[in-house]
Amino acid sequence: MIPRLQKALSSFNLKSTPSNKQVAELKQKYAAAGQGHLFTFYEELTDEEKCSLFDQLSALDVERVNKIYQKAMEGSKATETDAQLEALPDNVFDSVLNGDPAKLKEWWSKGLSLIAEGKVAVILMAGGQGTRLGSSAPKGCYDVELPSHKYLFQLQAERILKVQELARQYAKPAEKHRSIVPWYIMTSGPTHQATVSFFEKHEYFGLDKANVTFFEQGTLPCLTMDGKILLDSKSQVAVAPDGNGGIYAALQNKGIIKSLKQRGIEYSHCYCVDNCLARVADPVFIGYCVSKDIDCGVKTVRKLNPEEAVGVVCLRNGKYGVVEYSEISKEMAELRNDRGELAFGAGNIANHFYTTAFLERVQSFEDQLEYHIAKKKIKHTELTTGKLISPTTPNGMKMELFVFDVFPFAERLAVLEVDRRDEFSPLKNAPGSGSDCPETSRRDIIAQHVRFIEKAGGKVVSADGALNFDTLQFEISPWVSYAGEGLDEVVKGESVHAPCVIETMQDLHKAVV
Amino acid sequence: MIPRLQKALSSFNLKSTPSNKQVAELKQKYAAAGQGHLFTFYEELTDEEKCSLFDQLSALDVERVNKIYQKAMEGSKATETDAQLEALPDNVFDSVLNGDPAKLKEWWSKGLSLIAEGKVAVILMAGGQGTRLGSSAPKGCYDVELPSHKYLFQLQAERILKVQELARQYAKPAEKHRSIVPWYIMTSGPTHQATVSFFEKHEYFGLDKANVTFFEQGTLPCLTMDGKILLDSKSQVAVAPDGNGGIYAALQNKGIIKSLKQRGIEYSHCYCVDNCLARVADPVFIGYCVSKDIDCGVKTVRKLNPEEAVGVVCLRNGKYGVVEYSEISKEMAELRNDRGELAFGAGNIANHFYTTAFLERVQSFEDQLEYHIAKKKIKHTELTTGKLISPTTPNGMKMELFVFDVFPFAERLAVLEVDRRDEFSPLKNAPGSGSDCPETSRRDIIAQHVRFIEKAGGKVVSADGALNFDTLQFEISPWVSYAGEGLDEVVKGESVHAPCVIETMQDLHKAVV
Repeated sequence: MIPRLQKALSSFNLKSTPSNKQVAELKQKYAAAGQGHLFTFYEELTDEEKCSLFDQLSALDVERVNKIYQKAMEGSKATETDAQLEALPDNVFDSVLNGDPAKLKEWWSKGLSLIAEGKVAVILMAGGQGTRLGSSAPKGCYDVELPSHKYLFQLQAERILKVQELARQYAKPAEKHRSIVPWYIMTSGPTHQATVSFFEKHEYFGLDKANVTFFEQGTLPCLTMDGKILLDSKSQVAVAPDGNGGIYAALQNKGIIKSLKQRGIEYSHCYCVDNCLARVADPVFIGYCVSKDIDCGVKTVRKLNPEEAVGVVCLRNGKYGVVEYSEISKEMAELRNDRGELAFGAGNIANHFYTTAFLERVQSFEDQLEYHIAKKKIKHTELTTGKLISPTTPNGMKMELFVFDVFPFAERLAVLEVDRRDEFSPLKNAPGSGSDCPETSRRDIIAQHVRFIEKAGGKVVSADGALNFDTLQFEISPWVSYAGEGLDEVVKGESVHAPCVIETMQDLHKAVV
Repeated sequence: MIPRLQKALSSFNLKSTPSNKQVAELKQKYAAAGQGHLFTFYEELTDEEKCSLFDQLSALDVERVNKIYQKAMEGSKATETDAQLEALPDNVFDSVLNGDPAKLKEWWSKGLSLIAEGKVAVILMAGGQGTRLGSSAPKGCYDVELPSHKYLFQLQAERILKVQELARQYAKPAEKHRSIVPWYIMTSGPTHQATVSFFEKHEYFGLDKANVTFFEQGTLPCLTMDGKILLDSKSQVAVAPDGNGGIYAALQNKGIIKSLKQRGIEYSHCYCVDNCLARVADPVFIGYCVSKDIDCGVKTVRKLNPEEAVGVVCLRNGKYGVVEYSEISKEMAELRNDRGELAFGAGNIANHFYTTAFLERVQSFEDQLEYHIAKKKIKHTELTTGKLISPTTPNGMKMELFVFDVFPFAERLAVLEVDRRDEFSPLKNAPGSGSDCPETSRRDIIAQHVRFIEKAGGKVVSADGALNFDTLQFEISPWVSYAGEGLDEVVKGESVHAPCVIETMQDLHKAVV
């Protein structure tokens, strides 16, 4: 086939059998990279399968895979005892828990002003499926059985709607239309189409479709323990998602950074879909980070006790990083600072702030990023027999980057500690498991809404007298109040009668009558 | 000219000299109506002037003019002593001054809910020029020298913007776009173009142009004392605006009622451009009127003392109406009710509520409406000499309808008394005149804004210590607070530092730092 026709066919997405010369060149490249075994079954494939494997291997940057593997191996050899761990210096740590209320107001108003100027976006890590929850749907589609039966995605969409609304008053009337927070939602291969369809079906929960962008997380080949790429089938490389840290490469490769720049976005808030309390585009956090003039910001919650199994933000060999609870000695875990708090107590919740400049800069240090090795049972086609094997013990590894792996490269990073009750309740486990499960998500949201009313000077009363957050039918839409604001003019000195779902201000008025 | 061609020309707005037959018919019609004198100079006119006069007289409903004159004469003969005046019954009168705060909240939320549903419009009477203010521009273009130098139109536009904004939270997120308050602005011949241009120039002050409609008030011929139509020039009838009550005919004739119905508007708030404190689309008033299930609502302020020269809403011969202060005896003016208030104390401020059904119904009783005669010095062309006369004493009359002349025809009417300090400060007189002038407008707005802060638990402080409302540079945009709401979360317990103009929430935060 003449090259021009081949090119034309390829541009129409029509596949043509590669020429012998092309196959030979690719084989040589893979052999040189020590991955020539991927062609083991090539000659016995159908034409279509040949094309498929050829295309997949052509698209794969095999040298990059090898480099990632090597760097990951080096990293895994360096034991935790090699690392010098230090607590965060005071000048990069602030807390809303015992902070100055005037500061909170200042951050809140600064954040809303930036949102009003159209400078803030939200990036959501939503690649996960609800497998542990007993669902193969994207996690964001989960209904934790709030009185309203809102999905996680919907709660988050309504928080964006509300923050846009609050910010409108921070612009002059003629500029109110600039108060838009674009939402970039990272999906994965198995969740992409289901996520898009879910938003379509629910009409983007009131958001303007033009401001919601979906993009897929990348993948990396699965490897044997000695770094050989595994075949899923004879004509198919085994791949796995590249970890939530793959978000940086995906932002670059899927044109999201370009989109941010085109829209004039200077700051992004990035969080994980399974935190039902996530304050999406949180004005306080954005205002804080911009006030500190940092390029990367981290929201944390206070570690409950030295034993809690949570990663903490600290310094590792003088650079910002997250260390896992297993990496810290008992002494360090128990160490307390001048304020009597755990010195290594900044519990990481995958809730970050980035400047667009920082996101763009990630590619300049991408080859220094150290992937993590996760040893797994990987279904694969055995090279010697050609049989599909389902191992019962770990036989290979997936390579993942964590979203916090870029912290060491931040020039200016700071940490804002927030109230766990108000901002962190992850949905990880199956119903009935008792922690980080649908019941706790539901309970934590309802308890927060009761606190909102109480803080506004009102009182929630239920027909049976007691307030049991496990059963109480009481809920306030984020559209009515994002963080407790705007309620006091209605509820101060009043009783709010449960059961009720407050979807609008009108509902709130009705509930106090 | 053949009729078809004539019709075609006329449809292209080309004028053709009327045929002799047509002129003869029109003459006969006018002669029969006792207004044949309007043709006195017809034969000596140029062809173009003939056309112009012919067109004007063809368009004029001369029988209607005569009927209006006769009805007006009958009305003027009935002296005030004939009328049986009674104070308003308690069941159609409410007051925000000493009312139940829960009721106010209820009306406020009901009004905002209706606005959120897109059921509320605003009709503005803005035909007046600022002649007495020393300006020939439309009154709404006047700058009372607020710190922001906002025009009256702008203050009103921003109140509409704000009320739309407040109402958005009374709708569910997906329906927030329905929270639109269309603005229908009645101009007059001399102000129409200037008004439209002013809005164009200022980009509708942030409102969507599609929701602002201008329409011209109608006119009526000027008459001699015995009912003969006056000529302005030999080819031109002398006309004058038909009074603010002409709004009903104009709403019908200019397609506004049709527009209201097409948009699904059920309720309109109607007010006069010169009241700088007008709460445009006031949710409390709308909520009140709809709660009372009335077809016509009237906002009043408490008459200050028996001598104050203000019309009051009461019953006249058992029907709702406004009586002028001159029509009430001293005894009646001083009469007090059980609450110790003036029995005839509901001071009328041209601030009304109508259902669309009521506005549509006006045409069914239009011929029963009694126009008022205003004796004036009217420049005219003398029939005997053909000379233009500028009289020095009243020589003729203009016929006007007042906006409240429909009250007797309301089936269900109610009155809401509001706080004069918060809602009524008209701009009538030239700068320096000491009352109802630019200085009082400015002072009343600034004093109100200081009260807003104080009610929200804050304090306005000025550099020189004293708060002199005549000189204080302090102003809050309606975009930030419509009626004092939404300020406490920022200003409670804080000092707000003048001089400042609070245009956005960000400005408010800055002013308390």
